[in-house]
Amino acid sequence: MKALYFDGKLELREVETPRPNPDEALIRISLAGICGTDLEILRGYSGFRGILGHEFVGRVMECADKRWLDRRVVGEINIYCGECNYCLWGLGRHCPHRTVVGIVNRDGTFAEYIALPLLNLHTVPDNIPDEAAVFVEPLAAAAEVLEFVRLAPSQRAVVLGDGRLGLLIAQVLHQSQSKVTVVGKHASKLHLARSWGIRTSDLAVEKLPAASFSLVVEATGSPEALDEALRLVEPQGTVVMKSTYREPAHFDTAKLVVDEIKLAGSRCGNFTTALELLSTGKIKVQPLISQKFPLIDGLRAFEMLEQKSCLKVLLEPNASTAP
Amino acid sequence: MKALYFDGKLELREVETPRPNPDEALIRISLAGICGTDLEILRGYSGFRGILGHEFVGRVMECADKRWLDRRVVGEINIYCGECNYCLWGLGRHCPHRTVVGIVNRDGTFAEYIALPLLNLHTVPDNIPDEAAVFVEPLAAAAEVLEFVRLAPSQRAVVLGDGRLGLLIAQVLHQSQSKVTVVGKHASKLHLARSWGIRTSDLAVEKLPAASFSLVVEATGSPEALDEALRLVEPQGTVVMKSTYREPAHFDTAKLVVDEIKLAGSRCGNFTTALELLSTGKIKVQPLISQKFPLIDGLRAFEMLEQKSCLKVLLEPNASTAP
Repeated sequence: MKALYFDGKLELREVETPRPNPDEALIRISLAGICGTDLEILRGYSGFRGILGHEFVGRVMECADKRWLDRRVVGEINIYCGECNYCLWGLGRHCPHRTVVGIVNRDGTFAEYIALPLLNLHTVPDNIPDEAAVFVEPLAAAAEVLEFVRLAPSQRAVVLGDGRLGLLIAQVLHQSQSKVTVVGKHASKLHLARSWGIRTSDLAVEKLPAASFSLVVEATGSPEALDEALRLVEPQGTVVMKSTYREPAHFDTAKLVVDEIKLAGSRCGNFTTALELLSTGKIKVQPLISQKFPLIDGLRAFEMLEQKSCLKVLLEPNASTAP
Repeated sequence: MKALYFDGKLELREVETPRPNPDEALIRISLAGICGTDLEILRGYSGFRGILGHEFVGRVMECADKRWLDRRVVGEINIYCGECNYCLWGLGRHCPHRTVVGIVNRDGTFAEYIALPLLNLHTVPDNIPDEAAVFVEPLAAAAEVLEFVRLAPSQRAVVLGDGRLGLLIAQVLHQSQSKVTVVGKHASKLHLARSWGIRTSDLAVEKLPAASFSLVVEATGSPEALDEALRLVEPQGTVVMKSTYREPAHFDTAKLVVDEIKLAGSRCGNFTTALELLSTGKIKVQPLISQKFPLIDGLRAFEMLEQKSCLKVLLEPNASTAP
């Protein structure tokens, strides 16, 4: 099968189609999404080597348990040992022996097929099209911000970053009745947020007042944003960090202590929550799709992500290449 | 009256005795404690100018409300406006108009007398001697760590720093039935912790295993300790930062995000909790006293704090200087 393989350099390769274990399914990938973490991996994050990609929707083609055959599925990205203390406590996503699809020691989704444990799969309801279901993984990560703090009606939230993840997080907060502002520097992306009724702030135009938000979500992908997050958060407020980047950040710890601020790192989220949000139609994901590419044009897809106005780029590993 | 005044340089000065407002009491200071924050102020932290000091126990000498006369008291250090949103929400300690005793725009406790609002005062129960009551402010700050996380019996805590604050925090965790280890580099201080039944780890002798503590409390006073705190905390664990220092810290944000760690700044605490802890006798504070100095020897007291084995140094502003 064809796959986008990263080995210090990203290239299209012909590789062997995976063979599923008895507790796994072989999935034919319909759509796969490119994420900021994929870009960080190309820059050296996590030291990964193998088939890239972890966002997908696909269809089960082979499985020992015949009930799964032909089901449309999405899949959680952490594959854990099931035997260590973390796994026994239900914290498998922190299992020290885990592999992570397309990120740590396990091939990813930028390929025609992937084999994944049945334990990781969620069936996609019929009312969620592929173009929405492919957003389940990032939407789950976005929805996780609601686990950190419940805002009272008088409290306000701000999302730093108007990219793919920032716009998902802003929608999640908005639909939960929070007063949320998205801060960014891309007119077209901020315009999209406003079209959903979300307040926006253009970095080039205004500087938001200090200490005026109970919740600040950092989703810029840049370590410098932490200083701005700490400037905007009010005393006893919460800063949720969603970006992973290679460089260390530095920040004013006295501010954290004196203002008694909580800084929380957040990575994955709950797939069931994300499927429910998509099923209700309250979260708009299809307007985030900038373009779809067949897998064989995968390198062009990555080039497109360099454009500042670009949001989500999808790969179609099994797109017909016939005219 | 005599006072230790900081004006870029610390010196003993003759200053006017404060005159209490109708809602204040004039307190004769019996004992005042020197804290790490005082040392940071001498190095430029907070830009403070005035009488230093914020830990004390004393006796009310003058007050419009005669019921307070002659009471033995300790006092909270934040004096707030009472009218802004923070104050109305019960978050006066974050009032943007606040003054802070001996730290921000208000004279402190290294003096013969201080005037403080009655709202800030707590009466000291008779069974708590002055030498224990003078620890109420730092013990309240130490006890605040219990507000962040409740440890299950299988979970472990570690306190980085075997100084005054570290040993108070370790005791608070120990008496709350947590399995706690103190990490430090001072044999005599670690020995003291062991005498209370607390596990210790000498930095020079061993390196604790990574990702093995659910709660890490950073109380070293050094920005570098943040890296070690993040190394020791397990996934989904909590790091509580208690130290204030001038230099920015830098740290690996990817670790925070991937391991979904919470980093919480903590400053003040609840005086009532601290008085209760002292009243039960479960927290040993008097062994932490290295020496008492009369106020007129205040500069020598600060010199003593440079000694590595030194713990708490107290000032006696009204000590008889007669032979």
